[in-house]
Amino acid sequence: MKIELLEAGLYNVPLQVPLSDSTHGQMPHFELITVRLGDDQGLTGLGYTYTVGRGGGAILSLIRKDLAPVLLGQDPRRIERLWQAMWWALHYSGRGGQASLALSALDVALWDLAGKRTGEPWWRLLGGCRDRVKVYAGGVDLHFSLEELLEQHRRYLELGFGAVKMKVGRESLAEDLSRVAALREAIGPEVPLMVDANMGWSVDRAVRASRALAELDVYWLEEPTDPDDVRGHRRIAQRGALPLALGENLHTVAEFQRYIAAGAVDFPEPDLSNCGGVTAWLKIARLAEAFNLPVTSHGVHDLHVHLLAAVPNASYLEGHGFGLEAYLAEPLRIEAGFAYPPLRPGHGVELDWDRLSACRED
Amino acid sequence: MKIELLEAGLYNVPLQVPLSDSTHGQMPHFELITVRLGDDQGLTGLGYTYTVGRGGGAILSLIRKDLAPVLLGQDPRRIERLWQAMWWALHYSGRGGQASLALSALDVALWDLAGKRTGEPWWRLLGGCRDRVKVYAGGVDLHFSLEELLEQHRRYLELGFGAVKMKVGRESLAEDLSRVAALREAIGPEVPLMVDANMGWSVDRAVRASRALAELDVYWLEEPTDPDDVRGHRRIAQRGALPLALGENLHTVAEFQRYIAAGAVDFPEPDLSNCGGVTAWLKIARLAEAFNLPVTSHGVHDLHVHLLAAVPNASYLEGHGFGLEAYLAEPLRIEAGFAYPPLRPGHGVELDWDRLSACRED
Repeated sequence: MKIELLEAGLYNVPLQVPLSDSTHGQMPHFELITVRLGDDQGLTGLGYTYTVGRGGGAILSLIRKDLAPVLLGQDPRRIERLWQAMWWALHYSGRGGQASLALSALDVALWDLAGKRTGEPWWRLLGGCRDRVKVYAGGVDLHFSLEELLEQHRRYLELGFGAVKMKVGRESLAEDLSRVAALREAIGPEVPLMVDANMGWSVDRAVRASRALAELDVYWLEEPTDPDDVRGHRRIAQRGALPLALGENLHTVAEFQRYIAAGAVDFPEPDLSNCGGVTAWLKIARLAEAFNLPVTSHGVHDLHVHLLAAVPNASYLEGHGFGLEAYLAEPLRIEAGFAYPPLRPGHGVELDWDRLSACRED
Repeated sequence: MKIELLEAGLYNVPLQVPLSDSTHGQMPHFELITVRLGDDQGLTGLGYTYTVGRGGGAILSLIRKDLAPVLLGQDPRRIERLWQAMWWALHYSGRGGQASLALSALDVALWDLAGKRTGEPWWRLLGGCRDRVKVYAGGVDLHFSLEELLEQHRRYLELGFGAVKMKVGRESLAEDLSRVAALREAIGPEVPLMVDANMGWSVDRAVRASRALAELDVYWLEEPTDPDDVRGHRRIAQRGALPLALGENLHTVAEFQRYIAAGAVDFPEPDLSNCGGVTAWLKIARLAEAFNLPVTSHGVHDLHVHLLAAVPNASYLEGHGFGLEAYLAEPLRIEAGFAYPPLRPGHGVELDWDRLSACRED
């Protein structure tokens, strides 16, 4: 069996409402990088990754110029072998960064092929621990007015989400606290409420915030400070009063190992679109399991719903489509607090290529 | 003052003799990525980075598409501010990897502009601690026959190098040991001799090798195992008998901080072409100094000679031009064990663009 075809493309996907957080500012569009791998049996696997606006051209170049020669002609069933070959092909200028995103898209396509070959949906192929997962709505709403913020989260609960997350990191901590208090008041005491600082705080502010936010029964505090600072996160975990979630900016299994072994994270949050695909995501989930930690996810909910359903230590799925909803044949089914992985083979995502062609960049 | 021009190019630089090590196999050419920054006073700064063969197209895309808009129109004197802006612009898909190499090339060009603006050569502009540095020859010779190996190192000593380094990581440890013993015999007891395993060993083999190599008076053991394994390197340092050098595959200041704070490296070896340029290299050198460690370098000797001359805690400069020698107006002066930074403003490197045009890729 051989990989015979590799096609890749770059798209600028517009967001209906520009998103905003404490580090990335306003994000009017996301870059979507797609890959299609075809084998000599006539099957096609789809993979994709995205950025918050920059680096997509580089990722496309890595896929087309550097990784295509590594994959073409190889047996698509030997995913671990191909993953290692891609990792080492880009190691000198890689070991994370754009290389991890390129590798992620290709690994997802290889796993999609595996699902299609066997007829199995990912969640069952990879363990099938449950057939639905708890889902929260990830709001990207730092610069929303209080009214817009409350309205957004009211809508999330109506749509069937069982928990919600809001951004923090406004000018003053007092302002953050009053917005979180208002949302807690609006959703009542039963709905889990997460907050996400997107690396915006110093360690000392994060410790103070953690203690104050605990009074509002916050479920987790996400990415309080710079992801390069493992020791800082451990200090926040030890001196603060809330569990920590993080991982969307960690691009390798080794980076998760350091956080987990240091006791600097409570909810590891790997993103299969930037940590090295399904192959790396599962290793991180197993590592977390061995340390008695749950695992959660970041964005790309159509794919992560399968992975969280597959493993025993699943926490909440982040419900967040990053504008891709408009380009899908079938959106994720979310009802009464749960998301349901589809029964279609592989990940079961089909993109609307006609519609996407309007925002093609390369 | 404003940056008005940014030009970038990608070249495949052939190597006269294909290089080889335990991880990268045969390397017939290197990718060279160049940038020229022009200010509104008519000055031009030159920067460059390279890869061992893959990822160059991605680095070029990051420079042209993503980082050019960050720099154009800005004051080139505010290097730290621009560095931070570039780092955060690429953070989501970066934090290392190809982003670090793109940033390195641009930071080098900014510092070259600073030198040209003041008329000072880098080594004096940045501290001027000494006007020459000890230099060793970095052999990339794993697959050389014993005869070729000895001949190469005899030539290095004739050329004026004061110390030499050879590759290890052959099939058996016994083979490595006999090659090192033969070279030690050939160069005599006075010449410092380093060895470089290029990540090829497991921790346990590295510990055994370290003890055996110490009997041959090896100066340092370089990159014994995977650079993602900080704890493994600490075990090798503690259980073995040789100091460790590493850093060519670490792409951020934070990665060096982890190795240094863990006591897992004795000779930090940042490479300004992949760790974030002069700005990051100097931070790593200061960090090493605060921990009472020397600092060494990796490749790119025409630029590193300045930085090692500038700082108080310099160890040896690695003499290794990676094929670029043939494209330089003036090669580095090496005599009686020392390398001499030029007195020309900035880094003082001028590329032979006519000659390079023959290997231009983009």
